[in-house]
Amino acid sequence: MKFCTSYEDIVQASNILKTKAVQTPVFTSRTANQLSNATLYFKCENYQHVGAFKFRGAFNAIAKLSEDQKKRGVIAYSSGNHAQAVAYASKLHNIPALIVMPYDAPKIKMAATKEYGAEIYHYDRYTENRETIAKTIADDRGLTLIPPYDHPDVIAGQGTCAKELIEEVGELDYLFVPLGGGGLLAGSLLSAKHLLPSIRVIGIEPEAGNDVQQSLKKGEIVEIPTPKSIADGAVTTHVGYHNFEIIRHYVNDIITVPDKPLIEMMKFFAERMKMIVEPTGCLAAAAVMEKYLPVRQKKIGIIVSGGNVDMQQFAYWMG
Amino acid sequence: MKFCTSYEDIVQASNILKTKAVQTPVFTSRTANQLSNATLYFKCENYQHVGAFKFRGAFNAIAKLSEDQKKRGVIAYSSGNHAQAVAYASKLHNIPALIVMPYDAPKIKMAATKEYGAEIYHYDRYTENRETIAKTIADDRGLTLIPPYDHPDVIAGQGTCAKELIEEVGELDYLFVPLGGGGLLAGSLLSAKHLLPSIRVIGIEPEAGNDVQQSLKKGEIVEIPTPKSIADGAVTTHVGYHNFEIIRHYVNDIITVPDKPLIEMMKFFAERMKMIVEPTGCLAAAAVMEKYLPVRQKKIGIIVSGGNVDMQQFAYWMG
Repeated sequence: MKFCTSYEDIVQASNILKTKAVQTPVFTSRTANQLSNATLYFKCENYQHVGAFKFRGAFNAIAKLSEDQKKRGVIAYSSGNHAQAVAYASKLHNIPALIVMPYDAPKIKMAATKEYGAEIYHYDRYTENRETIAKTIADDRGLTLIPPYDHPDVIAGQGTCAKELIEEVGELDYLFVPLGGGGLLAGSLLSAKHLLPSIRVIGIEPEAGNDVQQSLKKGEIVEIPTPKSIADGAVTTHVGYHNFEIIRHYVNDIITVPDKPLIEMMKFFAERMKMIVEPTGCLAAAAVMEKYLPVRQKKIGIIVSGGNVDMQQFAYWMG
Repeated sequence: MKFCTSYEDIVQASNILKTKAVQTPVFTSRTANQLSNATLYFKCENYQHVGAFKFRGAFNAIAKLSEDQKKRGVIAYSSGNHAQAVAYASKLHNIPALIVMPYDAPKIKMAATKEYGAEIYHYDRYTENRETIAKTIADDRGLTLIPPYDHPDVIAGQGTCAKELIEEVGELDYLFVPLGGGGLLAGSLLSAKHLLPSIRVIGIEPEAGNDVQQSLKKGEIVEIPTPKSIADGAVTTHVGYHNFEIIRHYVNDIITVPDKPLIEMMKFFAERMKMIVEPTGCLAAAAVMEKYLPVRQKKIGIIVSGGNVDMQQFAYWMG
């Protein structure tokens, strides 16, 4: 079957990212293996630039723009990791970036975005539509929009993460991947199913936002109201179009996880593995550790998607 | 000059630890480089087995026992990382271990020690002397004492950490190493000065416990009352004898850091580098980031010695 992007595009993205992205470490934990009765490999994208896998897709998408597009610059709308990814990837490309962010976005994220040299355009998230704003400004200024997930080059960039993991650890029975808009899952599916045809790939949504589960059942993209979950990187209202095509063709299962196990998982990561993981980054790990699927004796890859969490909030959860 | 252990012993320890210890990652941080005006390489022993470099020395010391000694078992006294290191290294060697711990040691450390299969002997830290107790039991049962730092094989094991760092990153102008009993610093000095003769190696003590600084000034080991510092892995009353011989011959400087910058450093590690580091593990990094020595434009290795910190206490510091 022919999709918007392919494993060959992921190989190309890997070359583009070779000296630019962090080849993030793969961690193991004796305790996690004991508790899960399986062998787990955690691919730690919390140690990626800007603290999340999003850097991969953003950098790849910008690298593939024409010289003219680069010169005019890029625009993105996001209150989260994608904004910082586009800002930092633009800085590395030495091109202008405009980020459309709500007035009430976390101060630390605004500061980081500015620090990367991006311009910020503020809007009111209760009365204005960010997509309309971004499109208007993009047209006015000739900027190229870098979407957070529904784009071939973004998907190809995100696919480099699972590729690295599999090249490092070899044969896997399962790959568990956090799922919001579907960029990471679609890219992971293309890599994993190419490299290990018999691998089972599972997408994990927050329980409150199971739109992909619903979409697969219905056979078309279902849109839901903005879900309420602490997994703020996965509270999308609908999966991407390109992403859905890949997901519905390849994915073995989608499962959901409520918030409480995400907090437990964050604690485990902190206490036993000494790492800070954001709630969204705990989705895949929590599904395995809480045995939402029977995986005894299996060899399992788990993508830890990011580590950007407000420290006071984190302290509250840990306390 | 001839010391109790040598670079050749460290090479041997590296071979012993090859498939047993974690080859811990070396992390970099754009922000840390910017703030310090230097190029920093963080060798992350918080990701070592038992969450600290102590595993290296304990495993190496046990590996070098005779078959008869192994059969009879080992004993250690410690309320901290050394206890867990000896317990886990004994488990891997499949030999009995007895750990002498105060009644009021942190519950999480007792639980971890038991989980590794070690026997625990409790004592009252206010009325009993742990060294006397350990020696008596060792004699009674024929156990071999594994000391926390003042031992050639422990020092050789700890030296493998700096060796790995230098082999990975190459030339360095400086190496900053946390300093308590002197096991990590002595081992690091032997590795660093052998591999990079012109490197400057700095030991960092908690300000409240600057016994090595005092010892170097006086030309002999100075004993101080148990210092009060949150760097609980470095509140030793005196440096080891073997350690002092190596340190006074090779070290370029000893500097001290008070508690407050350690908390700031813990926050930086958590927020910007997504990792949990214990206060003792922040000593070397805080000295660099707070510019206790002028290191502009230099290439600097920093040993992050461990990550074992009570989560509620950590949450309090982060909040």
